[in-house]
Amino acid sequence: MFEARLTQGRLLKQVLEAIKDLVTDANFDCAATGFSLQAMDSSHVSLVSLMLRSDGFDHFRCDRSLSMGMNLNNVAKMLKCAGNDDIITMKAEDSGDTVTFMFESQNQERISDFELKLMDIDSEQLGIPDTEYAATVRMPSGEFQRICKDLSSIGDTVIISVTKDGVKFSTNGDIGSANITCRQNTAVDKQEEQTVIDLNEPVQLTFALRYLNSFAKATPLSTSVILSMSKELPVVVEYRIAEIGHIKYYLAPKIEDEEMEENDG
Amino acid sequence: MFEARLTQGRLLKQVLEAIKDLVTDANFDCAATGFSLQAMDSSHVSLVSLMLRSDGFDHFRCDRSLSMGMNLNNVAKMLKCAGNDDIITMKAEDSGDTVTFMFESQNQERISDFELKLMDIDSEQLGIPDTEYAATVRMPSGEFQRICKDLSSIGDTVIISVTKDGVKFSTNGDIGSANITCRQNTAVDKQEEQTVIDLNEPVQLTFALRYLNSFAKATPLSTSVILSMSKELPVVVEYRIAEIGHIKYYLAPKIEDEEMEENDG
Amino acid sequence: MFEARLTQGRLLKQVLEAIKDLVTDANFDCAATGFSLQAMDSSHVSLVSLMLRSDGFDHFRCDRSLSMGMNLNNVAKMLKCAGNDDIITMKAEDSGDTVTFMFESQNQERISDFELKLMDIDSEQLGIPDTEYAATVRMPSGEFQRICKDLSSIGDTVIISVTKDGVKFSTNGDIGSANITCRQNTAVDKQEEQTVIDLNEPVQLTFALRYLNSFAKATPLSTSVILSMSKELPVVVEYRIAEIGHIKYYLAPKIEDEEMEENDG
Repeated sequence: MFEARLTQGRLLKQVLEAIKDLVTDANFDCAATGFSLQAMDSSHVSLVSLMLRSDGFDHFRCDRSLSMGMNLNNVAKMLKCAGNDDIITMKAEDSGDTVTFMFESQNQERISDFELKLMDIDSEQLGIPDTEYAATVRMPSGEFQRICKDLSSIGDTVIISVTKDGVKFSTNGDIGSANITCRQNTAVDKQEEQTVIDLNEPVQLTFALRYLNSFAKATPLSTSVILSMSKELPVVVEYRIAEIGHIKYYLAPKIEDEEMEENDG
Repeated sequence: MFEARLTQGRLLKQVLEAIKDLVTDANFDCAATGFSLQAMDSSHVSLVSLMLRSDGFDHFRCDRSLSMGMNLNNVAKMLKCAGNDDIITMKAEDSGDTVTFMFESQNQERISDFELKLMDIDSEQLGIPDTEYAATVRMPSGEFQRICKDLSSIGDTVIISVTKDGVKFSTNGDIGSANITCRQNTAVDKQEEQTVIDLNEPVQLTFALRYLNSFAKATPLSTSVILSMSKELPVVVEYRIAEIGHIKYYLAPKIEDEEMEENDG
Repeated sequence: MFEARLTQGRLLKQVLEAIKDLVTDANFDCAATGFSLQAMDSSHVSLVSLMLRSDGFDHFRCDRSLSMGMNLNNVAKMLKCAGNDDIITMKAEDSGDTVTFMFESQNQERISDFELKLMDIDSEQLGIPDTEYAATVRMPSGEFQRICKDLSSIGDTVIISVTKDGVKFSTNGDIGSANITCRQNTAVDKQEEQTVIDLNEPVQLTFALRYLNSFAKATPLSTSVILSMSKELPVVVEYRIAEIGHIKYYLAPKIEDEEMEENDG
């Protein structure tokens, strides 16, 4: 039996919005440690990893580890029917073929249960090695979202360059080019407005903007985003979800040969 | 000569929005008692009945009963040009072929008149017998609208079950099933937030969600909706319009044979 | 070298939104007097004329007159990437083939530069004679915008009639007809809510609504619009941009033969 109750049901709604455009079908893994998901996007280019720790739920019970295959669009459809202030409880039998989402309004006057059919999904869990990164940038998540969106109107890829003074996002397209520079800024009082750079060595990597735009759908989950980068390694785009977990996206940088091929195509 | 003046012109705008998706062309009936309309929807499945009593208007004159055929989309187009705070006056000659909508801004600085060509529409007035219903539910109209919309993302039909404790809305679809229960709740101070059940005997009926969604377009007209149901009889979905009248929708329940046919098709 | 800095960067964004739907490609002219543009719309029916005076900028330098050909949609794309409170600086070399738009956030923490490729565009400057007009109407720009939009739902052309008491906008269409009258009104305190008519002789002219709707895209630039009209002359629809300049649209009236041809077509 699996049962997990979250007073801040809105978090679950936002989590689904943050991954459903990237991943179509995926297994959610329930274990004593928490509720998690790891999946490649449908074009097998990026990876998303979600962890909601059991201690972050208001009630969490998982007698036996379970892997529940779901179509994320269908989950999102059901969670859209929860009010933003509803309490959400997820429930599943150990050997059942459904998962139930229960929504309670705060005054208990409306109670809904939505039962979703589970599906069998093949998946393999990838081991992601813990790495020390050459550069880490923490910046307002809304700023990162807007930069990715703005640059997408000019070009398809972004070059992210981190130095000790700031982080520069650059693109190139048919109509011209663009550079947006955010300076390191730790002076403001509010942590969520800070741009903080932790640098071992300067790094410059190129990424496809459309994946970063998909990752930025997680913006409502956190006021800050953390970008971790090293030469030739996938960037990690991380959103921490207050007191319960995180969602991390991994995307390999483009290397020059790839870019050339793309331009030929 | 027909002339009717309504200070709260916004009501007329909302009335049109509440019926124009259901009915394409219809006759508005003007009589000494008021301004009314009765029409089947274009697929002849549901019926809408509007009554605006003459005493609810700020000025009302109707020398001779008139039946004025209008395309409701065209009426809605014209009424959209009235400001929300405009005073609206409708005018027609006894044997004319147009109706005029006059809009006055509150400071009288802008005056508009929109003249619509009338059309000949065949229609027969159905007699709707007054019935005692097995169950009546009064609930917040916004809640009803949201439930119908939410369930439509899962299934095509809704089973409405009323007991003395509450009303349950259930659906079934390819991806799973859903139940939403609203408990009877007369404790809250504001009448418009109450859910009140008046029960002679428990009733359970099945309806096509798409019609209920159309009916729910009347939500801005009233904070409450009243559902009246009896076994094998059409449900009445009623929105009372403060101090002037009402709009009532009638929809026959689905019976099992019908459902089977649909599933076969 | 051309360089122009505008603290109220939002004005430039709004200017582009006001002309990009009407004009595809156009030359911006930089001179010691200011930054200007004059262009016919793509169907060669209306003319738009923009003037931003050099003294309205916070910094303005123009060593040599320049004519810079740009695709207005591409300029608009870039300016959309400026925040509403950003300071915008335009820069170009005398013989370069690009223009740079630089955006600075108010706290200087984000600096963006967008470089647009220039294009060669043939254009001829039309001399517009200064004329005394038979009638001038100053009215709230939002009111004018709404009237043009409302009448477009009924007909394709508008007859504007100015008398000493007010201005009347009329249209005719398949479903009926409409008249909207705005009375002269100089009593209200706020100049931007006034409707003021300056009349030498009554005038009545017919225009295509779709051009007026395009002109009304300039509404965010000014609380008032000024319509200047004389018999058989193009109307001037003018939006004054506080302390820096104006945008003027010219549109020839329809004459009866034209209308007939249209109705035949």
